[in-house]
Amino acid sequence: MKDISQSAYNIADLREIARRRLPKGLFEFVDRGTEDEIALRNNRAAFERIKLRPRTLIDVSGRSQGITLFGHELKMPIAIAPTGSGGLMWYEGEIALARAAAAAGIPCTVATGSITAMERIVEQAGGRLWFQLYMWPDRSLSHKLVERAKAAGFEALIVTVDGAVAPNREYNLRNGYTIPFSFTQRNVTDVLMHPRWLLGVLARYVFTTGMPRYENYPNELKNRITARPMGKSRMVSDSLNWEDLRVLRKMWPHTLMVKGILSPADAILAADCGADGVIVSNHGGRNLDSSQAPIEALPEVVDAVGKRLTVIVDSGFRRGSDVIKALALGAKAVLVGRPTLYGTAAAGEAGAGRAIAIFREEIDRVLALIGCRSIAELNRDHLILDKRWDSTD
Amino acid sequence: MKDISQSAYNIADLREIARRRLPKGLFEFVDRGTEDEIALRNNRAAFERIKLRPRTLIDVSGRSQGITLFGHELKMPIAIAPTGSGGLMWYEGEIALARAAAAAGIPCTVATGSITAMERIVEQAGGRLWFQLYMWPDRSLSHKLVERAKAAGFEALIVTVDGAVAPNREYNLRNGYTIPFSFTQRNVTDVLMHPRWLLGVLARYVFTTGMPRYENYPNELKNRITARPMGKSRMVSDSLNWEDLRVLRKMWPHTLMVKGILSPADAILAADCGADGVIVSNHGGRNLDSSQAPIEALPEVVDAVGKRLTVIVDSGFRRGSDVIKALALGAKAVLVGRPTLYGTAAAGEAGAGRAIAIFREEIDRVLALIGCRSIAELNRDHLILDKRWDSTD
Amino acid sequence: MKDISQSAYNIADLREIARRRLPKGLFEFVDRGTEDEIALRNNRAAFERIKLRPRTLIDVSGRSQGITLFGHELKMPIAIAPTGSGGLMWYEGEIALARAAAAAGIPCTVATGSITAMERIVEQAGGRLWFQLYMWPDRSLSHKLVERAKAAGFEALIVTVDGAVAPNREYNLRNGYTIPFSFTQRNVTDVLMHPRWLLGVLARYVFTTGMPRYENYPNELKNRITARPMGKSRMVSDSLNWEDLRVLRKMWPHTLMVKGILSPADAILAADCGADGVIVSNHGGRNLDSSQAPIEALPEVVDAVGKRLTVIVDSGFRRGSDVIKALALGAKAVLVGRPTLYGTAAAGEAGAGRAIAIFREEIDRVLALIGCRSIAELNRDHLILDKRWDSTD
Amino acid sequence: MKDISQSAYNIADLREIARRRLPKGLFEFVDRGTEDEIALRNNRAAFERIKLRPRTLIDVSGRSQGITLFGHELKMPIAIAPTGSGGLMWYEGEIALARAAAAAGIPCTVATGSITAMERIVEQAGGRLWFQLYMWPDRSLSHKLVERAKAAGFEALIVTVDGAVAPNREYNLRNGYTIPFSFTQRNVTDVLMHPRWLLGVLARYVFTTGMPRYENYPNELKNRITARPMGKSRMVSDSLNWEDLRVLRKMWPHTLMVKGILSPADAILAADCGADGVIVSNHGGRNLDSSQAPIEALPEVVDAVGKRLTVIVDSGFRRGSDVIKALALGAKAVLVGRPTLYGTAAAGEAGAGRAIAIFREEIDRVLALIGCRSIAELNRDHLILDKRWDSTD
Repeated sequence: MKDISQSAYNIADLREIARRRLPKGLFEFVDRGTEDEIALRNNRAAFERIKLRPRTLIDVSGRSQGITLFGHELKMPIAIAPTGSGGLMWYEGEIALARAAAAAGIPCTVATGSITAMERIVEQAGGRLWFQLYMWPDRSLSHKLVERAKAAGFEALIVTVDGAVAPNREYNLRNGYTIPFSFTQRNVTDVLMHPRWLLGVLARYVFTTGMPRYENYPNELKNRITARPMGKSRMVSDSLNWEDLRVLRKMWPHTLMVKGILSPADAILAADCGADGVIVSNHGGRNLDSSQAPIEALPEVVDAVGKRLTVIVDSGFRRGSDVIKALALGAKAVLVGRPTLYGTAAAGEAGAGRAIAIFREEIDRVLALIGCRSIAELNRDHLILDKRWDSTD
Repeated sequence: MKDISQSAYNIADLREIARRRLPKGLFEFVDRGTEDEIALRNNRAAFERIKLRPRTLIDVSGRSQGITLFGHELKMPIAIAPTGSGGLMWYEGEIALARAAAAAGIPCTVATGSITAMERIVEQAGGRLWFQLYMWPDRSLSHKLVERAKAAGFEALIVTVDGAVAPNREYNLRNGYTIPFSFTQRNVTDVLMHPRWLLGVLARYVFTTGMPRYENYPNELKNRITARPMGKSRMVSDSLNWEDLRVLRKMWPHTLMVKGILSPADAILAADCGADGVIVSNHGGRNLDSSQAPIEALPEVVDAVGKRLTVIVDSGFRRGSDVIKALALGAKAVLVGRPTLYGTAAAGEAGAGRAIAIFREEIDRVLALIGCRSIAELNRDHLILDKRWDSTD
Repeated sequence: MKDISQSAYNIADLREIARRRLPKGLFEFVDRGTEDEIALRNNRAAFERIKLRPRTLIDVSGRSQGITLFGHELKMPIAIAPTGSGGLMWYEGEIALARAAAAAGIPCTVATGSITAMERIVEQAGGRLWFQLYMWPDRSLSHKLVERAKAAGFEALIVTVDGAVAPNREYNLRNGYTIPFSFTQRNVTDVLMHPRWLLGVLARYVFTTGMPRYENYPNELKNRITARPMGKSRMVSDSLNWEDLRVLRKMWPHTLMVKGILSPADAILAADCGADGVIVSNHGGRNLDSSQAPIEALPEVVDAVGKRLTVIVDSGFRRGSDVIKALALGAKAVLVGRPTLYGTAAAGEAGAGRAIAIFREEIDRVLALIGCRSIAELNRDHLILDKRWDSTD
Repeated sequence: MKDISQSAYNIADLREIARRRLPKGLFEFVDRGTEDEIALRNNRAAFERIKLRPRTLIDVSGRSQGITLFGHELKMPIAIAPTGSGGLMWYEGEIALARAAAAAGIPCTVATGSITAMERIVEQAGGRLWFQLYMWPDRSLSHKLVERAKAAGFEALIVTVDGAVAPNREYNLRNGYTIPFSFTQRNVTDVLMHPRWLLGVLARYVFTTGMPRYENYPNELKNRITARPMGKSRMVSDSLNWEDLRVLRKMWPHTLMVKGILSPADAILAADCGADGVIVSNHGGRNLDSSQAPIEALPEVVDAVGKRLTVIVDSGFRRGSDVIKALALGAKAVLVGRPTLYGTAAAGEAGAGRAIAIFREEIDRVLALIGCRSIAELNRDHLILDKRWDSTD
């Protein structure tokens, strides 16, 4: 089978292939934001407002984009963000994603809401794996999940803290998809009109493990959430607090990150609780529609805790230049979520690899064009922030 | 009859249902602004420019959106704004609105220009009712209206002060609607093309009380304004002044609010006259097209009089996050007008209730997502105002 | 004949009527700007950026918009700007314009490039007339024109100084109109498709005075400029300088204004030369496409010379609120050009009068809505300029 | 043959003619930017944000736009930028360009990637010629090229430093053009649909020198790069550094310029290396999509090195007013690339001349309209940068 993802020149191309391949309801589940999608648009606009100031006539022939993150060498300054739907993009899409990451020498995060069970991803894909945790109201169930991740050999734990309640993603309700997957009045036509997904993804699940569902969930929860709308199915706890984080810190001996921080004060509290890293994120513009773009919240967080812990950022990264801007502002790495999902939807592991390769090429090109030989050389002098003409007063 | 308003996921959906149900001229009467609709658009854009800074890992499981306003407990931080057209949206729409508000535990304001007489609304709907006063040139007629409101048991009086003259709503003149309602060359096709409104609303009035008109008006005025264009029918006084307010203060023993303030200096004068509250408002962008967005005028007013009286705000509120922003800037409550009118037009009391419920859900969700357990915890630290990158100098 | 201009609710409506009535080439001659029309659009955008801060509860029942300008009482704070094409909008359109102005109690400016001779306008229209002067390379010819204006009883002389060379109005070249009017390959279809203009305007000239041309021009110049493209026909002098102004000052005993000032330094020089007033203008966005919006240049000019001479402004005024903003910034009056031309094209004198009436109503309404009883009460406290949130630091 | 370029009133018109004449792939090669074309659009938007402040009543009748640049008199303040594709716009288009420049009294730059060999351009066109150098990995080959340029009598050498690696021009890959030109699956239809180009340009090359290729390249390189995609064919060196510049400085006895500077620090280094000039440029928005607009980077560069060397600027200049703004900010001259290429594509030498004439007329007009008699009189007081209302605090 021809690998269509090789025809993509950029992430927007991969997105377009995914849009054609997936039922509309699944594509929107991945692609869209929340409410009026102000945050979604602003995440991108914020990157456009930042300009890079190139330096020239520097020998960049031996340049490298490798970084050291939490003591490990990464071949690129990115990691795969947790996303709950990889397994709906492609049959066992989470395995495809993890394999692509391993091949590229970068970490991949497995989500609580993964379709494929975490142990199976470890077994089939290997590589450097992180586990993302949503805390359920019943803490003991979540703690068992953490123990499973530890036993399975995950290298890091990411606790997502920006979803105290289910966000308002109205399109999910309109589209009528459910987890575990079921046919509803609202999605049946959509699915039938996409036979490639129906046969290539859904049917393969049905003939092996049954309708796709959250395979990481313990049976207690799997049974309770039978066929709830995707937009409403998150059984997260709205009582999650810093004490929960301290408990997790004691349970988890490896790298611990807190994801969904936008305020310097919270970053300081995370450091006080012993976290190793924070991920500045507005959940890709999918949770709080009035949230600031993470790239604009980043500098204050770096200033507040940059010396105490590792600051990572995500949300809206689509070009290598976006990654460079984040690193120049002080982030140590960037998570990418949708780009590799688009790739997975387009062509499974090869497509996810194509997404990563696009970032690699673009990061390399921008490094060369601004005169940097390594990520370490990036700093705020490479940036021009939006204060027009101030320098010419 | 199926309640179509339950299919609305947000206020924009309710608006769309209203748009289809109402004759165009009536929909525009409710929906549009004035002149070039700059203020109308800017009211919304101003909300988009304000970002919320979420705090995380706070136990928000016991959160509440209840407030205390003028010594009363409200289940939500909103009240229904005065609007003169509820009775045209639905048969006896003002009663529907008031019932929905009562059921939700929030106040409802009856307008001078209500189609249904104030006493009838009190009788049929009950709940916590406020009365809005437009001052006529003949003060004695207005004072009689105030006495009627007092006798009917209204809890508060709102004096609207931003309409010294009729505003320039050109679409009303183009659409050719009149109050009392009459068929004109310009509106007859529009009405006939909307049989649901013709039969469900207009016909019911005709068979009970006759063509819909301002039932609060004394007979002297009812007769004088026979079938004047809606856009020109307001018989307000352009000589209204602070002395009038002082007279009203003496007449009215309960809560007294001044609506339509955009200047801190006027807020101070209102406090000096003994008002209990001011409503920062540009009349939903319907009167002065060059007016500032109330959400942007709010902070200065709060700074000027926040300790002396209760500052409320309205104009352009469509999402729970808008309400949260206003409260974080120091408002004590928010009035909503069009959203509940859209709901009323869609499904009467149930529709108005749906609009309120949407706000309730959205306010609750945003509170949780930014880490607030109560309205009292909101403050300006939750806001990021539009001064890009200043913090990273 | 029904007066179609009465159906216009605002200047945009009048413009639309004019657009339908006039051949496209003539409409564009009046309506458009220069080059990429950045200045044209920015003139309007600049007004949108300025907000009015209303004051309330002020008795505005006896309000007036009358002003005193150069010692004369004007019923409104506007005057008709010089425009060279009034006579092409309507048969003897300049007379129609002047009559409408006289009826409204405001001055009207006759342009050097008027189609109707100045003496004929004085004779047929009367009222308070100003004369606008473009200086020809041959100064003596221009001085004769000034002497004619003095003899004809013009009250004021306006010297236009922002057109040292013909501006770059590419549409005029494309449209192929000429002065004196002639049929060209480019305009003939356009004219034939507008029989109302062909018969009602062009034919009437042909049967009386011949093809329309600049009737103010001395015969020396009339003959020299036979049928040159409208966009290129201005025989202005690029050597015009302050000495010319001083000479005119000696020749002209009445009010002398300099039109086309955007720099405070030039306003000071104009005062030093003995001018009575300056008109801050970018020629309606028609000359220098990179020019600042006059409303934004105005404050500095007022600050520089407001106490020494009368500052007037024009360019882009379409709403009463625009006029109020200019007066609040310190202008003593506003010139309007296109609005009354649209009106003239729509319905001759009645149409011009309708344009003036629209401004009168809108100015009156805005005065009332912001709590002003007279133009004198307007000041910068009524304005909110574009410095978002600065007050809430 | 009628010269169609004479019907163009501005550069946009010439662009439109070029768009119709050229195969789409070639037009896009010239016209477009890189990646998401943010830099391309911002280059233009930056000019729109700068306003000119006109001075009036200055005798500008004897004005001139001539300048002295590196000791030579230029009739206009512009020179032709290096572009590698002139020879694909028109048969021997580089000769056409150089002739047009010579006729206009301005320099023309021949690019390393010229289709016509540099010696042939010198021979056929004459005039004041500059040579642009891309440094190959094998320095000795590049140095031979420099020696050829010296021998051929080029007056100046421009070293381009903003292309350490090939930029990401995705459209070139999509369009499938190659150098040397060859028919590919992707371009064949495009070419056949443009018979004028096929017969008038391509066929003439084929019947004389064979398929168009980089005729300046030494045979070693010509052979190595057979039919590589245009977007990927640049064999530039990513090890280029300041030492290379110092070597070139020793080799080249005439004027030496460094092109592609956006940072003041690099401009200082260029001066330290003995360069005579720097060209502030983002390569027309074609290399680094996050780069600042050169017109906005210019002031800082001028402030840093304006007294030590000659600062020139390019990227996005389409109107005479753009040139005036750059000169007022301190540039000594402006390079134009695409405008003359559009002209060349439209009508060869005559078209290139038309582009230059358009600039000449527009520069002359703007000079007159802002009251300047010479380029030397331009300064920052003629500019209003984007700091709205600051002067009226």
